Amino acid sequence: MDIATRVYNHKWKIDPIVRSLIDTDFYKLLMCQSVYRNRRDTNVRFSLINRSKHIPLAKLIDEGELREQLDHIRSLSLSRGESTWLRGNTFYGKRQMFRPDFMEWFEGLRLPPYELERKGDQYELTFEGKWPEVMLWEIPALAVLMELRSRAVINSMGRFELQVLYARAMTRVWEKIEQLREIDGLSIADFGTRRRHGFLWQDWCVQAMQEGLGDKFTGTSNCLIAMRREVEAIGTNAHELPMVYSALAEDDAALAQAPYDVLSDWHEEHEGNLRIILPDTYGTKGFLDRAPDWLAGWTGIRIDSGDPAGGAETAIRWWQERGEDPQDKRVIFSDGLDVAKIKELHAQFSDRTKVSFGWGTLLTNDFRGLVPDDALAPFSLVCKAVSANGRPTVKLSDNPEKAMGPADEIQRYKRVFGVGEQDSQAVIV
Amino acid sequence: MDIATRVYNHKWKIDPIVRSLIDTDFYKLLMCQSVYRNRRDTNVRFSLINRSKHIPLAKLIDEGELREQLDHIRSLSLSRGESTWLRGNTFYGKRQMFRPDFMEWFEGLRLPPYELERKGDQYELTFEGKWPEVMLWEIPALAVLMELRSRAVINSMGRFELQVLYARAMTRVWEKIEQLREIDGLSIADFGTRRRHGFLWQDWCVQAMQEGLGDKFTGTSNCLIAMRREVEAIGTNAHELPMVYSALAEDDAALAQAPYDVLSDWHEEHEGNLRIILPDTYGTKGFLDRAPDWLAGWTGIRIDSGDPAGGAETAIRWWQERGEDPQDKRVIFSDGLDVAKIKELHAQFSDRTKVSFGWGTLLTNDFRGLVPDDALAPFSLVCKAVSANGRPTVKLSDNPEKAMGPADEIQRYKRVFGVGEQDSQAVIV
Repeated sequence: MDIATRVYNHKWKIDPIVRSLIDTDFYKLLMCQSVYRNRRDTNVRFSLINRSKHIPLAKLIDEGELREQLDHIRSLSLSRGESTWLRGNTFYGKRQMFRPDFMEWFEGLRLPPYELERKGDQYELTFEGKWPEVMLWEIPALAVLMELRSRAVINSMGRFELQVLYARAMTRVWEKIEQLREIDGLSIADFGTRRRHGFLWQDWCVQAMQEGLGDKFTGTSNCLIAMRREVEAIGTNAHELPMVYSALAEDDAALAQAPYDVLSDWHEEHEGNLRIILPDTYGTKGFLDRAPDWLAGWTGIRIDSGDPAGGAETAIRWWQERGEDPQDKRVIFSDGLDVAKIKELHAQFSDRTKVSFGWGTLLTNDFRGLVPDDALAPFSLVCKAVSANGRPTVKLSDNPEKAMGPADEIQRYKRVFGVGEQDSQAVIV
Repeated sequence: MDIATRVYNHKWKIDPIVRSLIDTDFYKLLMCQSVYRNRRDTNVRFSLINRSKHIPLAKLIDEGELREQLDHIRSLSLSRGESTWLRGNTFYGKRQMFRPDFMEWFEGLRLPPYELERKGDQYELTFEGKWPEVMLWEIPALAVLMELRSRAVINSMGRFELQVLYARAMTRVWEKIEQLREIDGLSIADFGTRRRHGFLWQDWCVQAMQEGLGDKFTGTSNCLIAMRREVEAIGTNAHELPMVYSALAEDDAALAQAPYDVLSDWHEEHEGNLRIILPDTYGTKGFLDRAPDWLAGWTGIRIDSGDPAGGAETAIRWWQERGEDPQDKRVIFSDGLDVAKIKELHAQFSDRTKVSFGWGTLLTNDFRGLVPDDALAPFSLVCKAVSANGRPTVKLSDNPEKAMGPADEIQRYKRVFGVGEQDSQAVIV
């Protein structure tokens, strides 16, 4: 694979960024199946949010080109080989992870329409429709915007300048891998689809991890790459489940219960390593304190916001209080990781619990400092469920910088979930 | 061009290193034409000399593989396109640089046999025959040994490890180019064929120089790459001419005259930028002091051993003594160059004379420090005319470390050419 040449060629013709409906994160498909089973008629609105306002996406990216890419995604349907892989492959040790009724629905799916409007230097991009359909827009929409931005920057670069750009980026990733290789008992996966520099680049990173880390590399969140490179597809569930369930709650009591309803539905559908708690949507501490006992029996927890060491300590303490042995549990770190943090967290926790890492942006998009004005540095773009059946969603997380939703609803959620003062953490990416 | 993939594939099948008779230095062809015209019946013996005894070439390189590569070179003949290019291209502003009688001879040429024997950890590789035929073995023989050694080292590397190796090497070359770009009025050519890491790598370096340096990059010594990349072929003449002419001298008086006979023959054949004196074969100072006046009218001088600044000062002083304006002359530096030295020499001389650089090993083979045990560091391999019509050749140069020939002959040459104490310079590459 010659990335520089391919990327160079991108400059000359239309070249679809997302070429497969499974060029998406595995947990999206797991959640989609769950939603398709439990809440398929919910009307949800997803919206793109560029937290990095200093990146003028609408100036960098031509609207026509963006529409072309999005239209191309709407033309995609599951290919026969992809369907065979989803039906026949073993995920998390289980055959037929995807039920026949879901697969039939998925095979017939085309993504619903999008709404795109330029607002100043930013785009307003929204997707509204049945939850199981619109939710599948999130990852390809992010990937398209990230990669169109990369292309906009590299468009003015010469061929050898480009090759050296990728040479530098490869060297950087490889040096990270060389450091990670030294960590005994490391377990790390690629979670970098959504904020990748580009598809080919993510694919390169995954293969470099395969060769460089061997068994320490546990797989990728990206289904298409997992299929092609024959590695495990990795992922469980995300904030959109409690966010939408919560938005649908009829009153405060139902709201307080909603995040547990999510996990109760999940509990019915999954076991083992798929039973991973994502506790931070409305504050980790309160969530765990009020959690039903059966949840303490789950396999592990994913720490996705706030101080990660603090989050892990909270989880370990909670397991101990509930009579569980943390040594049997797994803590998955997935927020803003890079090598130094991975080393530190592994050193701090690997003796006390099982530790894994979901490494995202700084694996698949660490182009910091490689071009003038740092024009290829990753930035914070998200695509979130913003309303469900007309009601706004709210996310608090363990970092007030990541909170989203209308101010009055945020106050209500804080009250209902008993969230007080929170420590602020800079959002890296 | 995906170097890493191509190089990786080299591991699996026979892949000829030298694929063309013009994958050689341009000055070899110019000299060959001169020799064909003036001394075609001289019997000359070329011999490979590994000055870096710590590199056990015979342990690293399989004899069978080496023979296969050399046999392949013997199967080569000038292709139609190559012949057309040599006949039709403009070299140094001149059409029909190569005379029809020479071209006819060259078109019919196959390289003569070689003799190969393992001696301990080294190979003894010699070529004996008519001078214009055997002289064309030098560059391909060196290129084959250099590249087989590279392949021996990379043979145990993984695919992504390899890709990162080249990523690092590319980054290094590019950073050198970025520094060179800052030098106003720079004029630099690739002289790296003989000691290149590999053919594809030299080709990459030339293209990177083209893109990165623009007009500051004046061309390459490699004819095949010059043809393919449509850049100038660069080069004039080398030590083998005075070495062989001198070996053939019947007595001391004829010996003292021999180096001037070389240039007298050259003077008849070439003009302008091809009239470049290479003065150091038997000591620059004495050579210039005793030079005939017509030589001071030549266009420039090439400094290929000894302290380069000292050599340039000597040349400038000599021109002034002979009533020539150094501003109209050109000094070409071509010995052991890297960026710092290029910057320094350019700063020191570009106001006083025209300055050019022939950049060799540290352009096309700077793999220092990139693999364990520095196993890809360049090393000092040469292939020299060691005898002519049965008489030994001698080279003194301006650096006693580079002297070669039988001890008694070296003494005789020193006496005849009046060479006294010389400063020793470490031979870098």
